[in-house]
Amino acid sequence: MSSSIGENLRLTIFGQSHSPAVGMTLEGVPAGENLDFDVLAAFLRRRAPGQNAWSTARKEADAPEFLSGLLGNTTCGTPLTAIIRNTDTRSKDYSALKITPRPGHADFTAEVKYHGFQDFAGGGHFSGRLTAPLCIAGGICLQILKREGITVISRIAAIGDIQDEGELLSSTAGKNFPTVSDVQGEKMRALIAEARAEEDSVGGVVECAVLGLPAGLGDPMFDGMENRIAAIVFGIPAVKGLEFGAGFASATLRGSENNDAFALRDGKIVTETNRCGGILGGITNGMPLVFRAAFKPTPSIAQSQRTVNLQTMEEENLNIVGRHDPCIVPRAVPVVESAAAIAVYDALLGRRKEER
Amino acid sequence: MSSSIGENLRLTIFGQSHSPAVGMTLEGVPAGENLDFDVLAAFLRRRAPGQNAWSTARKEADAPEFLSGLLGNTTCGTPLTAIIRNTDTRSKDYSALKITPRPGHADFTAEVKYHGFQDFAGGGHFSGRLTAPLCIAGGICLQILKREGITVISRIAAIGDIQDEGELLSSTAGKNFPTVSDVQGEKMRALIAEARAEEDSVGGVVECAVLGLPAGLGDPMFDGMENRIAAIVFGIPAVKGLEFGAGFASATLRGSENNDAFALRDGKIVTETNRCGGILGGITNGMPLVFRAAFKPTPSIAQSQRTVNLQTMEEENLNIVGRHDPCIVPRAVPVVESAAAIAVYDALLGRRKEER
Amino acid sequence: MSSSIGENLRLTIFGQSHSPAVGMTLEGVPAGENLDFDVLAAFLRRRAPGQNAWSTARKEADAPEFLSGLLGNTTCGTPLTAIIRNTDTRSKDYSALKITPRPGHADFTAEVKYHGFQDFAGGGHFSGRLTAPLCIAGGICLQILKREGITVISRIAAIGDIQDEGELLSSTAGKNFPTVSDVQGEKMRALIAEARAEEDSVGGVVECAVLGLPAGLGDPMFDGMENRIAAIVFGIPAVKGLEFGAGFASATLRGSENNDAFALRDGKIVTETNRCGGILGGITNGMPLVFRAAFKPTPSIAQSQRTVNLQTMEEENLNIVGRHDPCIVPRAVPVVESAAAIAVYDALLGRRKEER
Amino acid sequence: MSSSIGENLRLTIFGQSHSPAVGMTLEGVPAGENLDFDVLAAFLRRRAPGQNAWSTARKEADAPEFLSGLLGNTTCGTPLTAIIRNTDTRSKDYSALKITPRPGHADFTAEVKYHGFQDFAGGGHFSGRLTAPLCIAGGICLQILKREGITVISRIAAIGDIQDEGELLSSTAGKNFPTVSDVQGEKMRALIAEARAEEDSVGGVVECAVLGLPAGLGDPMFDGMENRIAAIVFGIPAVKGLEFGAGFASATLRGSENNDAFALRDGKIVTETNRCGGILGGITNGMPLVFRAAFKPTPSIAQSQRTVNLQTMEEENLNIVGRHDPCIVPRAVPVVESAAAIAVYDALLGRRKEER
Repeated sequence: MSSSIGENLRLTIFGQSHSPAVGMTLEGVPAGENLDFDVLAAFLRRRAPGQNAWSTARKEADAPEFLSGLLGNTTCGTPLTAIIRNTDTRSKDYSALKITPRPGHADFTAEVKYHGFQDFAGGGHFSGRLTAPLCIAGGICLQILKREGITVISRIAAIGDIQDEGELLSSTAGKNFPTVSDVQGEKMRALIAEARAEEDSVGGVVECAVLGLPAGLGDPMFDGMENRIAAIVFGIPAVKGLEFGAGFASATLRGSENNDAFALRDGKIVTETNRCGGILGGITNGMPLVFRAAFKPTPSIAQSQRTVNLQTMEEENLNIVGRHDPCIVPRAVPVVESAAAIAVYDALLGRRKEER
Repeated sequence: MSSSIGENLRLTIFGQSHSPAVGMTLEGVPAGENLDFDVLAAFLRRRAPGQNAWSTARKEADAPEFLSGLLGNTTCGTPLTAIIRNTDTRSKDYSALKITPRPGHADFTAEVKYHGFQDFAGGGHFSGRLTAPLCIAGGICLQILKREGITVISRIAAIGDIQDEGELLSSTAGKNFPTVSDVQGEKMRALIAEARAEEDSVGGVVECAVLGLPAGLGDPMFDGMENRIAAIVFGIPAVKGLEFGAGFASATLRGSENNDAFALRDGKIVTETNRCGGILGGITNGMPLVFRAAFKPTPSIAQSQRTVNLQTMEEENLNIVGRHDPCIVPRAVPVVESAAAIAVYDALLGRRKEER
Repeated sequence: MSSSIGENLRLTIFGQSHSPAVGMTLEGVPAGENLDFDVLAAFLRRRAPGQNAWSTARKEADAPEFLSGLLGNTTCGTPLTAIIRNTDTRSKDYSALKITPRPGHADFTAEVKYHGFQDFAGGGHFSGRLTAPLCIAGGICLQILKREGITVISRIAAIGDIQDEGELLSSTAGKNFPTVSDVQGEKMRALIAEARAEEDSVGGVVECAVLGLPAGLGDPMFDGMENRIAAIVFGIPAVKGLEFGAGFASATLRGSENNDAFALRDGKIVTETNRCGGILGGITNGMPLVFRAAFKPTPSIAQSQRTVNLQTMEEENLNIVGRHDPCIVPRAVPVVESAAAIAVYDALLGRRKEER
Repeated sequence: MSSSIGENLRLTIFGQSHSPAVGMTLEGVPAGENLDFDVLAAFLRRRAPGQNAWSTARKEADAPEFLSGLLGNTTCGTPLTAIIRNTDTRSKDYSALKITPRPGHADFTAEVKYHGFQDFAGGGHFSGRLTAPLCIAGGICLQILKREGITVISRIAAIGDIQDEGELLSSTAGKNFPTVSDVQGEKMRALIAEARAEEDSVGGVVECAVLGLPAGLGDPMFDGMENRIAAIVFGIPAVKGLEFGAGFASATLRGSENNDAFALRDGKIVTETNRCGGILGGITNGMPLVFRAAFKPTPSIAQSQRTVNLQTMEEENLNIVGRHDPCIVPRAVPVVESAAAIAVYDALLGRRKEER
């Protein structure tokens, strides 16, 4: 089912941009896990709109209401369901989206798929709004993983053609605009401002690392850590590419350059380099699990674009009104972390079945 | 389960490099589909080793034996199971792999995951040999899709840092070494030969396109066409990156550059460009579905490498004997096509549930 | 995952007896299905408590709030989520259930399974309250099936040792206390009243039939119609037995008595009898699909019972206070219909994949 | 998928009665489990035909060949696949089954479902032959469970209207014709012989108990132990009813009679009676898990029967030639044990995820 994912941990996401609520159900979290709702709220705020200059002006509280799965602040072993109410919805007329599909959006494909019955308001089920419940699930997993010594960090690796410099560190992840190099971060923000000024948008890359992983998580074939992470990351709107470790660059290397030699450090087996991104044969090797996701530029731009009117079946100009994020990447950072946390926690639960 | 994939079409792959057989079970193929076993055999030969200068010398018949699911040459609606016998197995001593894990291979992670009980001979369950049953399933799906007007083509887009030139065409796909530019193809083959001569290996990129797709296949969130293809492609050994349409390059573009304008051609809605790779919101838009998979260089190289002896817990040199593909990419081409065909046919079957 | 069921239609149920809400998510309903909420409300009222003399006095509105999946009254193709608020919860002290588990309830097994972290209030996740969201899903499926000419009817086949007489008819299903024989129905009600007066409870049997089914629904092996229905029906609290067609009685028959001869009626292939309950090889044969579910007596009784105090680890008497249904069977009738409707609609969606 | 079952342990069954082989793939068995193939062979012989007076004369070696998942006799953590070759198949003309469907068989429903493309020879995918691979999986699980102190025993509880007497014991399970009362067993055998002499068949009931289970296995709602067992047991051809503990009889009891009081025995919490069959709220309570499955009489009988000729669309007489089991129940005993073992082992693996 397209709105559910996971084997040992099952996440289901529901809601549309303008339905009464969006939400999620998370099955499989064992009983007895204490949740800190302040920490969760702080995590969700990183994704919320209206926080700063580079995101849309729409302000939402995004405070989740938990409907089930808890006794006090502790999981009771049954499905966790939390919802976020959509407020101020249906306030304007979105019906044009049904007739003149926006380039780069799912308006046209939804019209075909749902035979015209789709909820088109605000992007419906395809809205970035649906990443809020993904972050609820991610935020829960992050708290549980942390108690197991596993942390997830990430950074903005690129905005447009401006790359971050230096290596991803835990300290980076705490920043408001998480880049290692503040100089590069400043250039990125300038590029976003420029795109906005030009009624345009810009894409970018998020890099994410999972630290503290034991070796032995994940499975061969279709449940490798790459497969598990890909299955969630490609569910984030606007992601068009994903690579692990050296990724596409490894395709240009010789085996002698790309192989990570095994070595001993303090009696522990490590690899001297980490071009495999901490994954061999789909299974973690104990080194940081590293991946990068490429985001296309926000398709909603103020510039006039060409589309086809589905009623008249004639080409025409489309002018999208309203304010949109000129760059989705900064707000996508916690969403990518959530995807990683969910995939890793599922693998961790699965690993327990193999313990002897 | 890690060896199974798919929702409407369920593929299960079994076997190890040196077990009595490898094989696959494909559930969900409707009754009444006629299979051409000569066409299937020809498809499997494209993946088989020992075909030419750039692959390993191991020769295998790779002729599948169908055990179930057929009445004559026609599917009868029950699970299709086919196996390929492994011959000449266990003929040499692989136990060193258990003690001195090869860099870039799953020897170490398998040792941890399976608590020392893994089948280490020839890479066990992690062997490229397991892509043979994947190609059986893929070959079946390709035949059925073709009757629906859907074809899958692909090319070697890069070997090392040598890129193919020109646009992927159906005619390319028929070539023995499928590149658009024969000049670039020649350079690629020279690079592979060079790597072999240097006791090294080299990686590359496969580009794949699905043509003739109707609009409306795939689902939002976790069952988008990207997710479905990624879930299988990352199950192919050595894949470390995947991108759709403009992929990582779209992250460097402005929205005005990246959006594909809708247009009319012969009364049909198309997009003027195809940077989205034929997928919007996870759903096909009727344009070619295009993706690229990055393969790391074959980790088995003849050069001496550093590893850790798991018995003595000391670092030591490892020399891998035997002959291996200096580049896996040419043989991976039909495997990538198989992944695409399986994902697309699953989506096509799922689409039927929505027809009114 | 234990709170989810279904392949083409995926139902997830969440909530505890005293959590903020109970609810359900139904994935896989195609876009364009119009829902009549008055019809749904009337269906839910059949399950609601406080309706009459034989059920608990607790009154609940049980009005579902739909959070997603709709555009107006019509499904939009995305997950349908509906919740029912739990009101007046946590108003009394349930902690005794944790210490002195009630015989016949899940208090003890929940304590073991959830390591003491279970939500014990009102039975938590094991409460009959969770059948309310099951009925939301069932009520939706019933409306869609009806448009396909498929109806689900049922009756109280037995209360205690009093059996209904005559054959299940559509007209029976409309009754307030659905028995074919009003005389037997009157005796059943008297038995329930007697059990209540004696501070005891009584069990019974619900018989259900699905009419108007096409031949060819369901699958061999593990997705037969029996398996599909069993997978849901045994999720209804208190069900301890299930049989199809002649069921356990068929075990006492000769083959010559039990086989249903094929015959022609108005050019249509039928069977002269229906001892197979409309299912052969797991697949519908076009005759009514008939099954019976046995419900144990409500375990909550006012009489004193023996249990073990988990704190002192001593045996002691337990007196359950509060009012409970002396017989759950009448309220279970629409729950059984829901289980049938969900299973049949899933099979019907699956059938579409096989159409040529 | 209809030929697969299980969540933590995934069983896939393939093959038709007259395809080259039948077989099974079992995913999820952890690495390091030693298998005794002599014990497995002895278990499979209990199901094999041609053993004695009450089964069909067809003799089959039924020796499984393991194709994958093992290193020597020990599981290596990857999918276990085993096949049994079908010999002497296609030796006669089965095409009449396609034209004149046998009452009580799946010939007619298969014709409709598979649009005439079904493999009709020997019952195809619906043949009891498919229980052989189910027993391979069951036999593997039984060996692993035994090492955990869990055993599965069963008996013939009834043949026709002759009931066994006394309580199911471990010693019963070892008998050739497993009844507690040898007197009743003799009567049952006489009834089978009588049915055979009259060119008829007879049904019966198998009772099964799982001993040594820890409390806490299974889940609420749809993954209760009842649901898990039902999902497999109803996949056994000819099963038409299933009940747990007191089952249908509990529907006739008062709560005060049916509730199992908790008590202490040697410091361990037990129940004084076991009418719940060891399951409360879907979860084991540490008492024996007990269930009974009702089998209809073998539909293949030598007596003339009425059917419809699908070509001429006229009613006609059908005479089935060949020898068939006059009673399938004795051979079904290990199949029922297999179903229980598979369901229990899956739950046991799932339980590990909840351990803290």
